[in-house]
Amino acid sequence: FVNLQKPISKSTRASHTMASQEHKLCMIPGPVEFHEDVLTSMSTAATSHVSPSFISVFGECVELLRKVFFTAKGQPFIISGSGTLGFDMTASNLVEPGEDVLVLNSGYFGDSFTTCLETYGANVTQIKAEIGDRPSLENIAEVLSSKKFKAITITHVDTSTGVLSDVRAIAEVVKQKSPDTLIIVDGVCSIGAEELRVDEWGLDIAFTASQKALGVPSGLSILIASERAIEVYKRRKTPIPSYYASWAHWLPIMNAYELRKASYFATPPVQLIYALNTSLKQITSVPLETRFQMHKEVSNRIKDAIENLGLKFVPNSREIAANGMTAVYYPEGIQATDLLPRVANHNVVIAGGLHRAIATKYFRIGHMGLSVIEPNRGHIDKTIESLRIGLNELGYRGGESQ
Amino acid sequence: FVNLQKPISKSTRASHTMASQEHKLCMIPGPVEFHEDVLTSMSTAATSHVSPSFISVFGECVELLRKVFFTAKGQPFIISGSGTLGFDMTASNLVEPGEDVLVLNSGYFGDSFTTCLETYGANVTQIKAEIGDRPSLENIAEVLSSKKFKAITITHVDTSTGVLSDVRAIAEVVKQKSPDTLIIVDGVCSIGAEELRVDEWGLDIAFTASQKALGVPSGLSILIASERAIEVYKRRKTPIPSYYASWAHWLPIMNAYELRKASYFATPPVQLIYALNTSLKQITSVPLETRFQMHKEVSNRIKDAIENLGLKFVPNSREIAANGMTAVYYPEGIQATDLLPRVANHNVVIAGGLHRAIATKYFRIGHMGLSVIEPNRGHIDKTIESLRIGLNELGYRGGESQ
Repeated sequence: FVNLQKPISKSTRASHTMASQEHKLCMIPGPVEFHEDVLTSMSTAATSHVSPSFISVFGECVELLRKVFFTAKGQPFIISGSGTLGFDMTASNLVEPGEDVLVLNSGYFGDSFTTCLETYGANVTQIKAEIGDRPSLENIAEVLSSKKFKAITITHVDTSTGVLSDVRAIAEVVKQKSPDTLIIVDGVCSIGAEELRVDEWGLDIAFTASQKALGVPSGLSILIASERAIEVYKRRKTPIPSYYASWAHWLPIMNAYELRKASYFATPPVQLIYALNTSLKQITSVPLETRFQMHKEVSNRIKDAIENLGLKFVPNSREIAANGMTAVYYPEGIQATDLLPRVANHNVVIAGGLHRAIATKYFRIGHMGLSVIEPNRGHIDKTIESLRIGLNELGYRGGESQ
Repeated sequence: FVNLQKPISKSTRASHTMASQEHKLCMIPGPVEFHEDVLTSMSTAATSHVSPSFISVFGECVELLRKVFFTAKGQPFIISGSGTLGFDMTASNLVEPGEDVLVLNSGYFGDSFTTCLETYGANVTQIKAEIGDRPSLENIAEVLSSKKFKAITITHVDTSTGVLSDVRAIAEVVKQKSPDTLIIVDGVCSIGAEELRVDEWGLDIAFTASQKALGVPSGLSILIASERAIEVYKRRKTPIPSYYASWAHWLPIMNAYELRKASYFATPPVQLIYALNTSLKQITSVPLETRFQMHKEVSNRIKDAIENLGLKFVPNSREIAANGMTAVYYPEGIQATDLLPRVANHNVVIAGGLHRAIATKYFRIGHMGLSVIEPNRGHIDKTIESLRIGLNELGYRGGESQ
């Protein structure tokens, strides 16, 4: 019998601890900065996924999500996976081969949703906006009148461009022109930061990921399906073409957890669920309207500062720009490899571009969750200041400082 | 501007901290007990998924996994998802509609793999063992000779029965009877506890989940594909029928991380990857042979204790029983609702049954990872003792104590 007298790995702890001592603020459009209590929940000791204590925490998450999504009877799904899994959770359960889907494309994630829908056999029509723009309501109305669509998809905030869609207005157009069309919202970069109301606006699917405005480390795909969406799913004629993403597995599991009963399809990510529970309690402890308003105000402060620096936004106007992130073109002569490391030297991490056509030409700042809700932490000021200094170091003297 | 003077959620921390003070040992067949350093890594502060520091940690995980799987050139995949996602990662990339697959079924997870394969169009033949048994090598050889199979699947340890498959011997039969057949191993409840050698045994796929013998909280699907499997994937004629599980997305991502380059398809679960890195460093700091031997010895100690209590195993014999878990029938007159809460009262959580046909008739003990590798923690002794006391409290006087 091999008896190791002491723990094997004394040395492994050092590196990560050192890293966190010199922590750089993570001001990208997700992952965002996490509350200490959320991180503490991440290191909850091993707990059985069918223990009464865990089932209760999971069940409470299901209930709290309804509040965050403003739905009384929508069905939450909380699944181990990236936000991208939301595409499969939607497309593989709701759309049958050959059915028509209208994709409103305001960036990279419209392309991704299209590819996913086509993978599961959908016949996709896209309204593709120019970079920095979004499809117009007139155009949407026109296309909806031309053909019967099973579903329409909206990227609430396309993380690649920072363009904000007017989900409420689009939903009204859909209700008017094509009331049977399911309204699907990719809310990965919006939910918890931008106003979104599933019941009042008549949305059928809204999904997000944990690491955005919900303020939980990445690893959870979170989706709400309306009662109508569940009915459409139940009436489908062809087999569900996916296994892991199939609601046939997850619906009984979610129902069981909500009833505080043990059930098994796949082991849930226990620690992430504890962290989600902690964050959802924080989020719902303040009116969501207050939260949305704070995101707007912080966004305005950042966008004012960017304008004062003489920089240009990727979105065509501030009216169609997201409140949880800001996408900005580099000034002439300055590149990602110049600016981002300099800002990082001042302990703030911002993101490069993601949209393929302009990837090297712009950067992105995330301002969601903790950094917005707890202004005393000074994250926003520090971010603006680090950006300003970084630009100055590169000899940039644009804007008011000229 | 709404200014909250103090953090919102003072109260949310209390509950989980209290829970961990009275922590019950999690001795189920996954999640297992986690090392403190692994849990510390789980609460790594927010870090960009494309930051150099994180890319380096991810890349190192890719390399370390090759050591754990005993492969020089196999391709690791580390994906946000449950272990169950390994079924999709295999079936949707390697099997084309109408192709024949042979499933060796030794419990619940053989059924699951079959359902997943059929979802993606496979024509499945099963060799279904009686509960507690496994398909015989003769039977496997016979079926392999009767028909050409694209792939054969083996559940290394079926968590529902505790039956261990002889993967090496089965692989030899396949190489002899049908060398073109891909050998696929569901190693969810085995890898890191039972010997498994991808290259030497000629395996094409082996997959696991983080919360088993790799000792990391749940939320990671981990898979290795042989060079041959990647070739077969590249030569496929029909489109890949899944989106999230498609190697078309993941292969470039894994290659990029290994080359320490930034790349994006879906945001990886950053904190889980830090935890995986910590655990893989611990695991590879000792020869894996030592690790396997320790699991055998602890398993023998537990199984001796169970036999001494006069209880009967679900596996037909100890020769075909797993070394990382033990499945045991309740003695007559004692039920799950009697025994499990009593053992839990003594601060040890063991699991009920999972195999549908006998679910209420047996219980399961997990003995993988930390509890095995660091015997000084006393987890195994405490588990045996709590079980013994729980049975005694119920008036059971079987075995040597009679």
